Amino acid sequence: MDDILLMLPGPTTVDPRVLQAMAKDVVNHRGDEFGEIYTETTKLMSKTFQTKNDSYIITGSGTAAMEAAIANTIPRGEKVLNAVGGKFGERLADITKVHGMESKVLDVEWGTAVTADKIEEALEADEDIKAVTVIHNETSTGVAQPIEEIGKVMKNYDALFIVDTVSSLCGDAVDVDKYGIDVCFTGSQKCIAAPPGLSAITLSDDAWAAAEKIDAPTYYLNMLKYRDNGNKTPAQTPYTPSVSLIYAMKKALEIVQEEGLDARVARHHNAAAATRAAVKALGLELFPDEDVSSATVTAVKMPEGITDSQLRGTMLDKYGVQLAGGQDHLKGNIIRIGHMGVISYKELAITFTALGLTLKGLGCDVDPGAGVAALANFY
Amino acid sequence: MDDILLMLPGPTTVDPRVLQAMAKDVVNHRGDEFGEIYTETTKLMSKTFQTKNDSYIITGSGTAAMEAAIANTIPRGEKVLNAVGGKFGERLADITKVHGMESKVLDVEWGTAVTADKIEEALEADEDIKAVTVIHNETSTGVAQPIEEIGKVMKNYDALFIVDTVSSLCGDAVDVDKYGIDVCFTGSQKCIAAPPGLSAITLSDDAWAAAEKIDAPTYYLNMLKYRDNGNKTPAQTPYTPSVSLIYAMKKALEIVQEEGLDARVARHHNAAAATRAAVKALGLELFPDEDVSSATVTAVKMPEGITDSQLRGTMLDKYGVQLAGGQDHLKGNIIRIGHMGVISYKELAITFTALGLTLKGLGCDVDPGAGVAALANFY
Repeated sequence: MDDILLMLPGPTTVDPRVLQAMAKDVVNHRGDEFGEIYTETTKLMSKTFQTKNDSYIITGSGTAAMEAAIANTIPRGEKVLNAVGGKFGERLADITKVHGMESKVLDVEWGTAVTADKIEEALEADEDIKAVTVIHNETSTGVAQPIEEIGKVMKNYDALFIVDTVSSLCGDAVDVDKYGIDVCFTGSQKCIAAPPGLSAITLSDDAWAAAEKIDAPTYYLNMLKYRDNGNKTPAQTPYTPSVSLIYAMKKALEIVQEEGLDARVARHHNAAAATRAAVKALGLELFPDEDVSSATVTAVKMPEGITDSQLRGTMLDKYGVQLAGGQDHLKGNIIRIGHMGVISYKELAITFTALGLTLKGLGCDVDPGAGVAALANFY
Repeated sequence: MDDILLMLPGPTTVDPRVLQAMAKDVVNHRGDEFGEIYTETTKLMSKTFQTKNDSYIITGSGTAAMEAAIANTIPRGEKVLNAVGGKFGERLADITKVHGMESKVLDVEWGTAVTADKIEEALEADEDIKAVTVIHNETSTGVAQPIEEIGKVMKNYDALFIVDTVSSLCGDAVDVDKYGIDVCFTGSQKCIAAPPGLSAITLSDDAWAAAEKIDAPTYYLNMLKYRDNGNKTPAQTPYTPSVSLIYAMKKALEIVQEEGLDARVARHHNAAAATRAAVKALGLELFPDEDVSSATVTAVKMPEGITDSQLRGTMLDKYGVQLAGGQDHLKGNIIRIGHMGVISYKELAITFTALGLTLKGLGCDVDPGAGVAALANFY
């Protein structure tokens, strides 16, 4: 218990079984043994994405998958609707521009969610939009976007539906085929709870058809090469993969299946609800609208008169609990509590005990036990 | 000893201390603890590259670094001289084209090395060449290029000198500053002997100056962002790094320093000479010109009347030693024996015993002990 408890929106605490799997001897990535491991891992990924399509593992973090999603499926010069209500929405818009497409930003106030209506309106107003990008779980603001509802709208338009589930997959409901998502991707180090360094991506038939028509100016992230090599016997990646991290990812995905995907998602929702209740019980205010708040990270307004370094510094230095701060204009204005991956009442008990004691110590008029008392309704 | 012995040109056998370092708990990649680890690792990388410049770790394999090297430092439409004498030379030429530069290929017969004279001739003939790319160690043919001599020529021209040392750094002499290399990169899983999944890159002042003028259409591999984030306190990577692999890389680089860089390079040269002697003693023929043969991988012509699956299949299935085959038009025509990383006489003893017995078993008229007997002059 001497270790730092990571209550971050990634990386998350990694199960010792996953760390041990990672430490196995490295095998040849062009051989049968690895081919089998890679195939099993990508099959587990497709099961987790809930898609009949193949999935691919990229040796690179979530941002690599973000770039692969955009660069491979949209012709240069074409228009993309980027829903932007936080830092990761901005990143997808930046990538859109870096790759020479026209980024049409659908501005969403930070702390609120984009709605299916807004997306529909934008698509109605401009028939040249070739793709829509949505961050399912905007880690920077703690907001979940209604991707199922947006998916229903998208079915009436030709535009590709590109969804970032980096910090939501396995922690919130993502059903790629049911929602009609064309390009979906995630990272290893969030709710899958493997170490950071890998991302996974899956493309629909429409997305592949688009990719086949594009001479994408990206080499390492060229998805057609991932597909070609994935279809070889034994299955391969186009370039040397991170064999050790794929061992870890496979084990982490097996643990997801052991728990059951639905049960894991429900556990995250319960932890999120418990976290919100405990936050409020300590007299703090949620940053986002509660009805669109994330299942995997809770953003909380900084209490008046307390600085980020006081609050998060005390939490870390005195109590060994690491929370995340705000990014960009939210720096110093919010704290973010990640509840991703292996999260039970125990982690929340430690976190809210520490938070209660920290607030008390900083002179807040608060019952330091009120946070954990509020967990009673959830565990 | 029941494990498969990897005698491949990467991945190589990883020291158990490195595997154990990798299995440590994942820490926050934006925190002080990781910042210190990352800084120490990049400093060790600069020491290994023998440069006063900073180095950066990319979460991605060698190909990611190849793309970063080209995409960041050469303006679109400009001319690049790609020395191509094997598969990795071709890859750099492909990346050059994918990124919209003009690739001028300096064709080198596979199995021979490019010479400094040929590079000089090409630069004299065309003053528009903005960069020259050379694969130091062409893994596909087992040839080492004379980068020190080429570096001397390059000093008389304005073009950037871009050198791929993916399969040579720590196994052959690479002195970035002394040779005047502008962009140098390597992979984790070759002579550094860490697991695959990371690459490292360093840029000269001239290369940075070029990068600052380019709006590179790459996001994940944008080196300016690596520099900006590397300069933060604590030092960071622009996107989530593979924390576990960086633990491993740091430990592997520490082991390099323990051994001594020069001693490690000398050990590789000795292993290469021993391998060539043993190969010839078994009546086999080297594929490349011996005077340009690689210090880290030896390419050998397939003996008459024996197929790749007979030779490599028997080596693997019966004797547990994995060799690499040929690529592209060399498929079936050569075998490649990697001697990278943790290679002593023990690995060569096993390999050449197995190779002698395999050849004998396949009906070759050979003394199966002749290979290991030839090792006597080297160990």
